[in-house]
Amino acid sequence: MNEGGRIAMLSRILSASAAGVATGIGDDAAVLDVAGAAAERGHLVWTIDEQVEGTHFRRDLGSWRDMGWRSFMAAASDVAAMGAVPWCALSALVLPDDVDDAALEELAHGQRAAAEATGAPIVGGNLARGPAMSIATTLLGTSERPIRRAGARPGDGLWMAGRVGLAAAGLRALEAKAKDSDALRRAVDAWRMPRALVEAGRAMGRVAHAAIDVSDGLARDASHVADASGVRIVLDASALLADVALASVAAALEADALDLALYGGEDYAIVAASPVAIEGFRRIGDVTEGCGIALRGSNGETPIEPRGFDHFTSGRLTAASRS
Amino acid sequence: MNEGGRIAMLSRILSASAAGVATGIGDDAAVLDVAGAAAERGHLVWTIDEQVEGTHFRRDLGSWRDMGWRSFMAAASDVAAMGAVPWCALSALVLPDDVDDAALEELAHGQRAAAEATGAPIVGGNLARGPAMSIATTLLGTSERPIRRAGARPGDGLWMAGRVGLAAAGLRALEAKAKDSDALRRAVDAWRMPRALVEAGRAMGRVAHAAIDVSDGLARDASHVADASGVRIVLDASALLADVALASVAAALEADALDLALYGGEDYAIVAASPVAIEGFRRIGDVTEGCGIALRGSNGETPIEPRGFDHFTSGRLTAASRS
Repeated sequence: MNEGGRIAMLSRILSASAAGVATGIGDDAAVLDVAGAAAERGHLVWTIDEQVEGTHFRRDLGSWRDMGWRSFMAAASDVAAMGAVPWCALSALVLPDDVDDAALEELAHGQRAAAEATGAPIVGGNLARGPAMSIATTLLGTSERPIRRAGARPGDGLWMAGRVGLAAAGLRALEAKAKDSDALRRAVDAWRMPRALVEAGRAMGRVAHAAIDVSDGLARDASHVADASGVRIVLDASALLADVALASVAAALEADALDLALYGGEDYAIVAASPVAIEGFRRIGDVTEGCGIALRGSNGETPIEPRGFDHFTSGRLTAASRS
Repeated sequence: MNEGGRIAMLSRILSASAAGVATGIGDDAAVLDVAGAAAERGHLVWTIDEQVEGTHFRRDLGSWRDMGWRSFMAAASDVAAMGAVPWCALSALVLPDDVDDAALEELAHGQRAAAEATGAPIVGGNLARGPAMSIATTLLGTSERPIRRAGARPGDGLWMAGRVGLAAAGLRALEAKAKDSDALRRAVDAWRMPRALVEAGRAMGRVAHAAIDVSDGLARDASHVADASGVRIVLDASALLADVALASVAAALEADALDLALYGGEDYAIVAASPVAIEGFRRIGDVTEGCGIALRGSNGETPIEPRGFDHFTSGRLTAASRS
């Protein structure tokens, strides 16, 4: 199919009406009405995320539909972690010649499903040919009170919605072609089909002082909050190890559960600093005076390195450091 | 430099305050205030464009600064062609290992210069490693009255701001390593450093019925307006050939000036259907009843094919069909 045909196909799959969207796919730009949710909530929250073949996904590790879904969710998670309500999205695809129309159709169905699950339809985008497949998703959300990385205060609890370590375990299982089991299947699903925690994000947005989504690993992302807020974050090892699913997948992979929890990325949990409990969150640590991050275990408190995935010093997808 | 170091460098180069931008680079998402221009003008206009190495640019055809500049301008042009005022932008970069820190710095300076020229600072983005370089730019603009492709009416004049054919000639000159001359230098500059026509777009937005920016070639882009509006567009050959700069560069390249004007892309002219003259625009044709596009020359009216650049049927950058 030529470019026009592909745009028409994407438009058929993706088109959905949404409040405040005056013009969707098919013009130079989308047109949004400011009156309504944007004006009422007062703030726009705006992110872009890009997933690249060979770095974030590989064709043998999931379906085209999975790639469409997870690339959308990665962007939606940024908006959820600000406590905002996803509004609508644009998608820019770079397609190599070996991505055929059927693959593109599957990918778009994955994007559509993720857009429906988060309530943010895709209202425009861009198509380009290129040597390597990539999916860029930009998302707008609306918020009364955007929650930033800065703002955590000594005395706050550290709270988490969702889980950490499972997606990394799933990727490791896929790469190792590990023997199928219920525990591993759950982990593989966590990697292939993460879910942006929109409802948890909204609950968090009403009370939290600071928040971030965990895309590159808990240690690294929690340290961003500590640095931006000028506080110390102490993670509780027993709270992190209380996740039964993580324990069983770690056992199946002969991996260290705490290592997966601290350094595994791509689960898209939300971590928030809050003076009170948050619906849908469990407590995983504390905010104290000082700087950096530490782990509290049976031997007391130990400072930990904020390592995690780094695009320019970590290995590629296939290297162990990605998971 | 690692990811954190590169983000810090980009933040230093790109950071600029702007009305309505509450949080810029460095959080999960940018935060924008709806009160102000967005609320007053009532509409947001939102686009994403992506430029890919090997498809839209090649390292030997321009500097890193040029690549940053022109990728930003391609996105800004979409907003200008809706009659909107550029507000702010996000930038997502995919960087192969052979793009070093110095190259990234130059690229960012080009983006910064383009952001300043259009009045829309870059307030966030994404960095990823990948096998092929790409630059995705998403831009928000504000508008009282967004001008779409649909809306042209029989009896309207067809008006153009900027020029067509010059950028394509410049690319052809670069690819052919043509001998340097004033005429060719002007064309090469048109390809390397296009400029989104923001002021012309605003003037157009006050009176036009429909508009588009010319990125893929005049014939193709004008046909999008004809199709969306359900009208026929007749281009005037003598008006297109009145561009002295185009005539001289066509002569230097032994190319057909009309062919360059009709099928050459990437000048980012704005073409509008309007019942009255528009400041900064010259008349290049008419809107009539019917469908499709035609060229009016000394032999009367001839229907023309809406061909132009198509990502999935046209050749790559290096093939003649790109220019």
